[in-house]
Amino acid sequence: MTLTGQMLIGQHAITGSREAIRAIDPATDKPLEPAYAGGTEAQVDQACALASAAFDSYRETPLAARAQFLEAIANEIEALGDELIERAVAETGLPRPRIQGERGRTCQQLRTFARTVRAGEWLDVRVDNALPERQPLPRPDLRQRQVPLGPVAVFGASNFPLAFSVAGGDTASAFAAGCPVIVKAHGAHPGTSELVGRAVARAVKTSGLHEGVFSLLFGSGREVGIALVSDPRIKAVGFTGSRSGGMALCKAAQARPEPIPVYAEMSSINPVLLFPAALQARGEALAQGFVTSLTQGAGQFCTNPGLVIAHQGAALERFISTAADLVQHSPAQTMLTPGIFTAYKAGVDLMRAETVAIGLKGETPNQCQAHLFVTQAQDFLRDPTLQAEMFGAASLVVQCADDNEIRQVIEHLEGQLTATLHLDDADLESARALLPMLERKAGRLLVNGWPTGVEVCDAMVHGGPFPATSDPRSTSVGTAAILRFLRPVCYQDFPDSLLPAALKHGNPLQLRRLLDGQRED
Amino acid sequence: MTLTGQMLIGQHAITGSREAIRAIDPATDKPLEPAYAGGTEAQVDQACALASAAFDSYRETPLAARAQFLEAIANEIEALGDELIERAVAETGLPRPRIQGERGRTCQQLRTFARTVRAGEWLDVRVDNALPERQPLPRPDLRQRQVPLGPVAVFGASNFPLAFSVAGGDTASAFAAGCPVIVKAHGAHPGTSELVGRAVARAVKTSGLHEGVFSLLFGSGREVGIALVSDPRIKAVGFTGSRSGGMALCKAAQARPEPIPVYAEMSSINPVLLFPAALQARGEALAQGFVTSLTQGAGQFCTNPGLVIAHQGAALERFISTAADLVQHSPAQTMLTPGIFTAYKAGVDLMRAETVAIGLKGETPNQCQAHLFVTQAQDFLRDPTLQAEMFGAASLVVQCADDNEIRQVIEHLEGQLTATLHLDDADLESARALLPMLERKAGRLLVNGWPTGVEVCDAMVHGGPFPATSDPRSTSVGTAAILRFLRPVCYQDFPDSLLPAALKHGNPLQLRRLLDGQRED
Repeated sequence: MTLTGQMLIGQHAITGSREAIRAIDPATDKPLEPAYAGGTEAQVDQACALASAAFDSYRETPLAARAQFLEAIANEIEALGDELIERAVAETGLPRPRIQGERGRTCQQLRTFARTVRAGEWLDVRVDNALPERQPLPRPDLRQRQVPLGPVAVFGASNFPLAFSVAGGDTASAFAAGCPVIVKAHGAHPGTSELVGRAVARAVKTSGLHEGVFSLLFGSGREVGIALVSDPRIKAVGFTGSRSGGMALCKAAQARPEPIPVYAEMSSINPVLLFPAALQARGEALAQGFVTSLTQGAGQFCTNPGLVIAHQGAALERFISTAADLVQHSPAQTMLTPGIFTAYKAGVDLMRAETVAIGLKGETPNQCQAHLFVTQAQDFLRDPTLQAEMFGAASLVVQCADDNEIRQVIEHLEGQLTATLHLDDADLESARALLPMLERKAGRLLVNGWPTGVEVCDAMVHGGPFPATSDPRSTSVGTAAILRFLRPVCYQDFPDSLLPAALKHGNPLQLRRLLDGQRED
Repeated sequence: MTLTGQMLIGQHAITGSREAIRAIDPATDKPLEPAYAGGTEAQVDQACALASAAFDSYRETPLAARAQFLEAIANEIEALGDELIERAVAETGLPRPRIQGERGRTCQQLRTFARTVRAGEWLDVRVDNALPERQPLPRPDLRQRQVPLGPVAVFGASNFPLAFSVAGGDTASAFAAGCPVIVKAHGAHPGTSELVGRAVARAVKTSGLHEGVFSLLFGSGREVGIALVSDPRIKAVGFTGSRSGGMALCKAAQARPEPIPVYAEMSSINPVLLFPAALQARGEALAQGFVTSLTQGAGQFCTNPGLVIAHQGAALERFISTAADLVQHSPAQTMLTPGIFTAYKAGVDLMRAETVAIGLKGETPNQCQAHLFVTQAQDFLRDPTLQAEMFGAASLVVQCADDNEIRQVIEHLEGQLTATLHLDDADLESARALLPMLERKAGRLLVNGWPTGVEVCDAMVHGGPFPATSDPRSTSVGTAAILRFLRPVCYQDFPDSLLPAALKHGNPLQLRRLLDGQRED
């Protein structure tokens, strides 16, 4: 297939007429053809009109049909073959095995949501049968199910060109919930976006769905992005990216005559706590694990371990010196975009903490040198810039004088995606005492692991208090993400023929309902 | 018990030092003693500090203990006896049987949440066991539960001085979720609030809970209310009231460094659709049911039927003339406050539609005369003021020329709490065709009933798209309301001894978990 530079408005390939961008190969700083012209307001309007027209039919697709659609997308992505891998590698500078792995994850994610759709638990069916004889007043027949919110605008991330982009987690979960999706493609990987977008559009067609179920737009966040979020037919937003980008979308969503929910995954430094016994027993191994996690993918993960908290002393010094040695020998890695490289460089250059190690210098453009910094708890507590996210392989060790300083540092943290505890048996009680604080601060807590690597499964939470996300009540990875795009509707005294299948008296979907206060077997 | 005019900050009764208000008996316009002085910023701060201090212990209360606390509140409210009933009648002008019924509903609501807490399904436990042998990477052990958001600020409603006030639905659901609550009492019924607040505080004490689990503040929404919503220790807000009040809280919540969710139940006119066969067969009976629902409680319900939509013609004319006759003979009823009466009067006086009936004139202050208006679909579509809520016993009949106008009128509606369909068998197909639109517009759909009367049960939805509420993803009545105050946390590779009871390998709480993708029996 030849890339065309065209957007997809439903089944129609259309060339935008606003300023065009080209992807840049960050390994060479060379632009990649073709040009992708931005969409106009009229084109945003067209995509929204189609999505709105598709909503009522798409949201009532039988569960099996909707699951098959998700599986069809996965099949179409796999059928893109090597062209997809090559384009994604060129646009992101990420190594080929990483992109291949990410494709597997993306397709598995779609198939996992297919399983979740079929199981139907997300419909959360509740039935309270009529009690016509009740005194003083009879009870009517009341039945509740979840319905999708409506068309969803999805903004892909730069760092997962497949798993968090056009057919990534936000799109998969919105489709699973029954929402049409309009994707605003990330400017860093437009070719990858076009390929995947066409795969989704083919799945829409072969599944016999209304074309408005999916559109793909190009253009700037400030123009196309804000126009999309402001359109009255859009009912929710999924976003992964920077804090400033996420907050701009939140602001636009709140300024609408009808405000809508925004699920923005934004900023996290993922504190790692090293407890004394663990640090004493295996400081070198911890340093090794830490630097591997820190430098993986040039540190370009939302869950990158950007902060280490521990008691000062000889054991922590050994950890720091081992980690510093590893960082110093870590090779430079190409970052995703020149912009990300520039921001990283500015961040580490301005860092107000002691630099203890810098990784090897790169020889090609946009290469990230890992950085390790050290500071004291009191300085960390005084200077809020020390907990600003530096997107890349940089981390800060905070040395604490005692348990009290550790508590203060944790309490001082903004909301996080993850918090990690490295502990041995002797540390259990200290860890237990900190858990309530950590649960308030983060969406995922790990023991003796590293936060990079986010499993797509039922129990995952990739979310957390602000500014990790704009809405801590949900996750953007894992099957619970379907819940973000639903709302409850109650049907009172409906004749059976008017009830949706999920609520009919005969329970044709064989759901385990909450029936008169009891869960069915 | 003698009313003191004091606030409750934890277990301490404290007199505010800002401007004082007295309740007004709306039936006589006479003030009622004592005076209730507003809280200061320092007092808001104190209440928030206590709530924050109480959070970590309260949120880990065993399910049985938390359920018993909710039941203890119900018992304490019942133990207030006639003093509560008398004060609530005096402060609201509502008839004694109504207040007695509302007390029953309030206590039933607390006991229903106790049952929900015990069942534990709201914990939504998900377990994905470790797969150490998986290729290419092992899967860690991942476990998810729901934890409460944190201290919640609750703003009671004027029209349900018990069921939507100090110990009403928002407070009950927040307590059920494990959140401490700070109530900003409604200025219309401060004495009722003090009595109920003391009952809650006694339940806190006898249940052995941290005193910060509950505080009750007096003062203006603009001062105490905004200070409360702006406090960084408050993590969510529950509100029932006017659109302007709700929007002010939403704005304050969004302006915080850490924005928080606001559940504001605001404004709804609750459209009622009369289908042709039903209207033909039983227009008079429908008119009777309509006027009963319209005038109940002087129309001061969020679910009051403020809009009737039907085909024009002889059948609708008969409906209108029967309804007009009933409205004309309906006695005036005392409204909740002089302010509500004044707003209602202004609303009906400025209404830009034909007045077809006005109820009997009152002889005491603040009495609501029911109003029935009629307009044409095209006028309704042109004039957005015609769908502004008039809080009180006023309703507007929209006459439509054909099915297309009916569709246009529905599509033109803002979000609603309810939508009602009156239909006979011959109307089923017309109704079916409108259902997708109605599901997009409202949180509860009724057939052949009236929207007033909101059952507290598992299947109820008292919510809906904006401006019915600020967050359509939830309900403020019924047990699903507990879900508003929760967020998921994932525990990765935790040793069993550090896991919360809900997630331990032995499943000591005997929950039906989602275990490796399958729901347990």
